[in-house]
Amino acid sequence: MNYFNPEDTICAITTGGGMSAIAIIRISGNKAIEVTNSVFSKDISSCKSHTLHFGNFTYNTKVIDEVLVSIFKGERSFTGEESIEISCHGSIFIQNKIIQVLIEKGCRLATSGEFSMRAFKNGKLDLTQAESIADLIESESEAAHNTALMQLKGGISIKLKTLRNQLIDFASLIELELDFSEEDVEFADRKQFNNLLDIIKSELKKLIQSFKLGNSVKNGIPVAILGAPNVGKSTLLNCLLNEEKSIVSDIAGTTRDAIEDTLIIKGYKFRFIDTAGIRETEDTIENLGIERTLEKANKSEIILFIIDASQRIKLQLLELKKIKKENKRKVLVVVNKVDITKINLEEEYISISAKTGEGIPILENELLKFINTEKISESDSIVSNLRHYEQLQLTLHEINNIIKGLENNISGDFLAINIRQALFHLGNITGEITTDDLLGNIFGKFCIGK
Amino acid sequence: MNYFNPEDTICAITTGGGMSAIAIIRISGNKAIEVTNSVFSKDISSCKSHTLHFGNFTYNTKVIDEVLVSIFKGERSFTGEESIEISCHGSIFIQNKIIQVLIEKGCRLATSGEFSMRAFKNGKLDLTQAESIADLIESESEAAHNTALMQLKGGISIKLKTLRNQLIDFASLIELELDFSEEDVEFADRKQFNNLLDIIKSELKKLIQSFKLGNSVKNGIPVAILGAPNVGKSTLLNCLLNEEKSIVSDIAGTTRDAIEDTLIIKGYKFRFIDTAGIRETEDTIENLGIERTLEKANKSEIILFIIDASQRIKLQLLELKKIKKENKRKVLVVVNKVDITKINLEEEYISISAKTGEGIPILENELLKFINTEKISESDSIVSNLRHYEQLQLTLHEINNIIKGLENNISGDFLAINIRQALFHLGNITGEITTDDLLGNIFGKFCIGK
Repeated sequence: MNYFNPEDTICAITTGGGMSAIAIIRISGNKAIEVTNSVFSKDISSCKSHTLHFGNFTYNTKVIDEVLVSIFKGERSFTGEESIEISCHGSIFIQNKIIQVLIEKGCRLATSGEFSMRAFKNGKLDLTQAESIADLIESESEAAHNTALMQLKGGISIKLKTLRNQLIDFASLIELELDFSEEDVEFADRKQFNNLLDIIKSELKKLIQSFKLGNSVKNGIPVAILGAPNVGKSTLLNCLLNEEKSIVSDIAGTTRDAIEDTLIIKGYKFRFIDTAGIRETEDTIENLGIERTLEKANKSEIILFIIDASQRIKLQLLELKKIKKENKRKVLVVVNKVDITKINLEEEYISISAKTGEGIPILENELLKFINTEKISESDSIVSNLRHYEQLQLTLHEINNIIKGLENNISGDFLAINIRQALFHLGNITGEITTDDLLGNIFGKFCIGK
Repeated sequence: MNYFNPEDTICAITTGGGMSAIAIIRISGNKAIEVTNSVFSKDISSCKSHTLHFGNFTYNTKVIDEVLVSIFKGERSFTGEESIEISCHGSIFIQNKIIQVLIEKGCRLATSGEFSMRAFKNGKLDLTQAESIADLIESESEAAHNTALMQLKGGISIKLKTLRNQLIDFASLIELELDFSEEDVEFADRKQFNNLLDIIKSELKKLIQSFKLGNSVKNGIPVAILGAPNVGKSTLLNCLLNEEKSIVSDIAGTTRDAIEDTLIIKGYKFRFIDTAGIRETEDTIENLGIERTLEKANKSEIILFIIDASQRIKLQLLELKKIKKENKRKVLVVVNKVDITKINLEEEYISISAKTGEGIPILENELLKFINTEKISESDSIVSNLRHYEQLQLTLHEINNIIKGLENNISGDFLAINIRQALFHLGNITGEITTDDLLGNIFGKFCIGK
């Protein structure tokens, strides 16, 4: 993928683009102030950074709108370049007209995420921080928001950069050995190196393990609701949705099953996978197509198995047994319709009435227990980005190779290759090592104006 | 309608509210800076107006987002009050969270148009200027945009205020006469007064007449497309829409017929009223339900009567005659399908081919001729607001009463009543005289955040 000249001055609408009270148009690049001066009623060339100026946005002496111009100079701007923000009235006509005039005056329309990419290229943010901006904007739940914000504040990059620098130190010693290979000296203390590798390995493992949690937090924890027909699965779902007055998200662009409902419980997102298909079947419980149910269950992390207290319990318990046997997911047994009749089971269960709402807060608390909320609040090293996860796994693979190599006393040449690979993957995460393709992939997913 | 306390500090999202790169939250009122200080990582109490500050928006020491805070002090803000704009990352979560925290810290959510209403109440804008902001934001065409902008810049208010002040001068002389009524003196020179009334009357008439144009510019000029079945009405419409690569608007909230298409030609909006109903009828041309056609035509300002050059011309001309006879609208005769065959008519017509696009630019120019574009560009006194139009008519009515009264030598008491009424209506337009009901009606139509 080819990127446009970083010498270009770029512009874009950074607010929604639709009709609104106010809209913001952002300009960044060498000519930001020069271009603004050519369309603004005041001369801002000698104005200080971080000041605001009210005046007319004009085109060929014709006033387009009354606007507020914000000035950000060099280092102090988001992109690290001369930047201008124009705050105009949010009519679609005005927004488009201003962009059109700016382009005529020498700006170019920014590509997706180009402002953030410039911030990265100019050293204002590392790559994980830049990526966190997209996550931040897309966050729907408080937990996802917090994870993204931690990443923006440095999060895992700080840790990874430290590890990488230590690895670089060793790498240079090993490379030095290669230069003096005929003399058979060891500049790099193998024992010390082994210790460092152990530390790196353990850190990598922790980060890799955190991805399950990070991903759940970012994308929501999938929960399958299972149970015989008419046990009240959809009533429960509706009850949960109402109880929390939560956001049932229907945001374009988030891909999910059509039959998924999203629910935020105390800041954490849960994705409920409804097993409506089963409910509609004419089969008896015995024949209810266990495979299809299990397939659903396998997509989830938690299974809510609903038992109807007013139906035949024996058959339902048989079903539960099968589910538990053939499925490794945590199963939460929920006995519904306790407003009609109460039962006693041997195993642990939660009594609820989806109709009256009884027991729902208890159920929600049980769901929350599946999330290591403590870990989230205490730790700043949760990986929630699939790209980071993949690179971390590749790094771990190389680290394991190095450890194995050291055990087998392989030569420095081979060690050096593995170390370089590990450094490459680590550097890929925080952006010390990047390619245009990689940047294109990352920033291309951003919205325009960011 | 009751309005909330103007002493309240209000807040609202002023950008679209949806997910975007950046969102702006506006705060206005006595406590704007105090509230901001309680949630911002920097102390801005002694910062100057029109400065920008980067820092953290926090809630109970927890960082919610990295934000930019803009400060506007007293007189220099939009509302004329201490104001703050918080520029945050545009996730829905962050926007809502910030609003929620601001409310907890003592702000109140602004009602629709409350910022503009405060700007009006604090003398930053008169009423027509405040109203023009809503028009400006909703402008879809360049002409509508220009008209709204003129109004924002003062437009008709300046003219009306001058007239009103002159009338007030006379009113006070007349009132003075009443105080000295026993002495039978005339402080107010009746001849001079008559001259003033003539000037006012002529100005009012001009403004009232301009409403037709102003309304057309704002809401679009309605054009009915008539003609026999299969003459190519919808092909023409599609051709016009494609030719101009124009905005076929489908903006929620603008009420219009479902079968209307909007087209911007050189900055002017046209609303095409399709007479699809007729096209679908089984009737022959003779019986085609002329009444229904005329009804459509009566809703329009321009009728495009399409003649199919390849069909029987005689019957079509007969139809055209009827239309012209029973309808006062300007009829533009368009002969279509000239790519198939050419014809000659006695009357003026435009030859086109909706299929090949031939003649379309000529048709567009003819449509533009219906708009007094010269008047629009030269004049800053076009009334486009229905409320203003109504008040102008009421004023004219009173002015006529005064003139009649003077002719009949009625006593100062009665004159004074009419003058007061005229002043009331004029004052209603620019806002020298307002009621909470009136303001509620006007600003209630604004969006929240403006």
